[in-house]
Amino acid sequence: MANPNDPALHSWIDIPPHSDFPLQNLPFGVFYTEERGTRVGVAIGEYVLDLYAVSQFGYFRGLDLPTEPKVFRRRSLNAFIKLGRPAWRAVRQRVSEILRHDNGELRDQEEAMRECLLRQRDVQMLRPVKPQNYTDFYSSIEHATNVGTMFRDPSNALLPNWRWIPIGYHGRTSSIVVSGTDIRRPNGQRKAPDAAAPTFGPSQQLDFELEVSLVVGQATGMGQTVPLAEAEDHIFGLILFNDWSARDLQSWEYVPLGPFLGKNFGSSVSPWVVTLDALEPFRVAGPAQEPEPLPYLQQTGAHNFDIQLEVSLAPQGGPETVISRTNFRDMYWSMAQQLTHHASNGCPLEVGDLYASGTISGATPDSYGSMLELTWRGTKPLTLADGAQRKFIQDGDTVVMRGFCQQGELRIGFGEVRGTVLPAAE
Amino acid sequence: MANPNDPALHSWIDIPPHSDFPLQNLPFGVFYTEERGTRVGVAIGEYVLDLYAVSQFGYFRGLDLPTEPKVFRRRSLNAFIKLGRPAWRAVRQRVSEILRHDNGELRDQEEAMRECLLRQRDVQMLRPVKPQNYTDFYSSIEHATNVGTMFRDPSNALLPNWRWIPIGYHGRTSSIVVSGTDIRRPNGQRKAPDAAAPTFGPSQQLDFELEVSLVVGQATGMGQTVPLAEAEDHIFGLILFNDWSARDLQSWEYVPLGPFLGKNFGSSVSPWVVTLDALEPFRVAGPAQEPEPLPYLQQTGAHNFDIQLEVSLAPQGGPETVISRTNFRDMYWSMAQQLTHHASNGCPLEVGDLYASGTISGATPDSYGSMLELTWRGTKPLTLADGAQRKFIQDGDTVVMRGFCQQGELRIGFGEVRGTVLPAAE
Repeated sequence: MANPNDPALHSWIDIPPHSDFPLQNLPFGVFYTEERGTRVGVAIGEYVLDLYAVSQFGYFRGLDLPTEPKVFRRRSLNAFIKLGRPAWRAVRQRVSEILRHDNGELRDQEEAMRECLLRQRDVQMLRPVKPQNYTDFYSSIEHATNVGTMFRDPSNALLPNWRWIPIGYHGRTSSIVVSGTDIRRPNGQRKAPDAAAPTFGPSQQLDFELEVSLVVGQATGMGQTVPLAEAEDHIFGLILFNDWSARDLQSWEYVPLGPFLGKNFGSSVSPWVVTLDALEPFRVAGPAQEPEPLPYLQQTGAHNFDIQLEVSLAPQGGPETVISRTNFRDMYWSMAQQLTHHASNGCPLEVGDLYASGTISGATPDSYGSMLELTWRGTKPLTLADGAQRKFIQDGDTVVMRGFCQQGELRIGFGEVRGTVLPAAE
Repeated sequence: MANPNDPALHSWIDIPPHSDFPLQNLPFGVFYTEERGTRVGVAIGEYVLDLYAVSQFGYFRGLDLPTEPKVFRRRSLNAFIKLGRPAWRAVRQRVSEILRHDNGELRDQEEAMRECLLRQRDVQMLRPVKPQNYTDFYSSIEHATNVGTMFRDPSNALLPNWRWIPIGYHGRTSSIVVSGTDIRRPNGQRKAPDAAAPTFGPSQQLDFELEVSLVVGQATGMGQTVPLAEAEDHIFGLILFNDWSARDLQSWEYVPLGPFLGKNFGSSVSPWVVTLDALEPFRVAGPAQEPEPLPYLQQTGAHNFDIQLEVSLAPQGGPETVISRTNFRDMYWSMAQQLTHHASNGCPLEVGDLYASGTISGATPDSYGSMLELTWRGTKPLTLADGAQRKFIQDGDTVVMRGFCQQGELRIGFGEVRGTVLPAAE
């Protein structure tokens, strides 16, 4: 059997150059059409392969999958993910096979082709997983340093626990929505430093946070821990994650129990889950960790991933401006460390949990992952392509995040996560 | 139709004096037996009424319920709760009717009696709801003041936002377990103030937190808010909640993003959800709020509830000692204010969400709701009935929380939430 990551593989499907979805990617998602209802699909070029149809036409025969393939008709990937890594791998391997340039099993069957292959523009993508729990980490040292400098003390920007603990907090799953869903500006309490009392109204400091989230693929029981060497066995794949944030609400409410209404009004996710298997060629070592982590968090080998990321902002009716370019490779804490830490007290993982990275900021001001940092709390407004300026996000603005891995001609992409901001409710 | 809260009602079932579950209570829960699988039940005295059996025998005929009563065979109350308040009320009213002393419909039918009524000791109670999201508030002014005094600054114990915002944070649903489930002491990072580096190992400051949690009964959509006058329409009922806490883990990790692994290793809930309807006679006004809350949080009328609470601790093989007695009536922020605040930014509520009150501490040292406060961070150990002393919780200790409302002879009780601490994993 061919390795589905082999850069030399190509498909009989015409895939545009620089597509995020070549034969080596095959990310999983959930789509909807009026005729079919909800289906699990795989992205290939500008198409989506309907896995329920594929299974109905018998192409998964011989794989060790449930005979009644209900998992491919669900509203989320959770049931499919619960089948386990051997099933994910078998399906990806088989899909790779039937899409290969030298394989006519599907290509040459007119009826099967019509049923199995749809154009992405003809389907509606849904939230790929039902998130059971959502944890947001804080694993970029540049982001933590920037925030500490602005909100606390520049000379002690990084708190004493930060280099010991992959700091994180629990977020809200009920407001996690798929790319394309509008986000309403939240109302809330905010207080100017010199004001005697807070007021209630629309957030004046609406922001995005550029993040990557892992999707948990293997659960653990109550009291069970996960050694670091096994942490990645529990990861199904990755998605792009926009952790919308209202900075004025957040700064007034967050002491002492952390972010709450400044965050939980909405988070947006990209619709395609790129499997960890597809990302294998893009493993890199993370930055040196000093001091050395405690033994349970020590790792050897390459546990970071080289994913190029960018954020664009478009005013209503206006063109996009790229306002940040950064990379996931330099995160101080790896996903494996985050996951092992999360389970170190016996807290159970559930399939479909999302563990987001925290804002991904690079070392230079054009690589920061939030407006807060890009405009340095509004003191250095950004100028957009049409000349407009921004301190924070305005009503009607659309924020788009994109990500991909690149090695020579091979590109493994995430697609995008997009959201437009609506005015606050009256 | 009789008002099911009428104190004069009594049942043909022999209910012991001081039972938590007289005819006026009728709380809902989920139980399991090998023969029946999972069933929704109602507690009455020392019995549980199997609502699936009740519906199969036709006693719900005429109520506007789904014809196929699958909701009474589920593993959680969520599906039943989703039927809405008219259904909850109709079921409670009908159950009250068929259990009344002067009603023979069930009592006189031998086969129905055998199928519908089980002894509580013969069934296993399960977690009553599948919590979709869990938020923990911080609404006792005495608790917030005690913690602020110990961990921060006695002269500014209460932070500036506390009297403006019902402070809360998101917790973890995957580790919420039903009463009777053992809790394993968590391992984690903790650092002595004078140590240069943290160490990893069993928590040395394991604690409980006495709380009451509401169960959300009516959802809201993305972007929807809830006016305070309608907040209680979204509450199905209340349960007792033990928010187990590892103080040493918590104090090292919680800055700046709030509690995380110091909390999410386990929370225990009581199995019976006491409906807000059953608690109506026990409404009281909360304490005066100064300064006046912002308009969206202003309330008139009685939105607190007079619930007497106590905590007992029993060493392994030893007797219980009551170590705290307090009351839910004095919480500074009402549940209605918590819920309205939670939804004020448009964050969607989901049926089955748990919003816990935060630790319930009274004004006197014997009414504090945590070991942290009862022993003043370990400086004033408690002496138990058998002479043993406790600064925090030891392995083998069992913590039991109980709660009830009382008016004359009428007692509406919650039963208990109980948990025994196991030694940390090696």
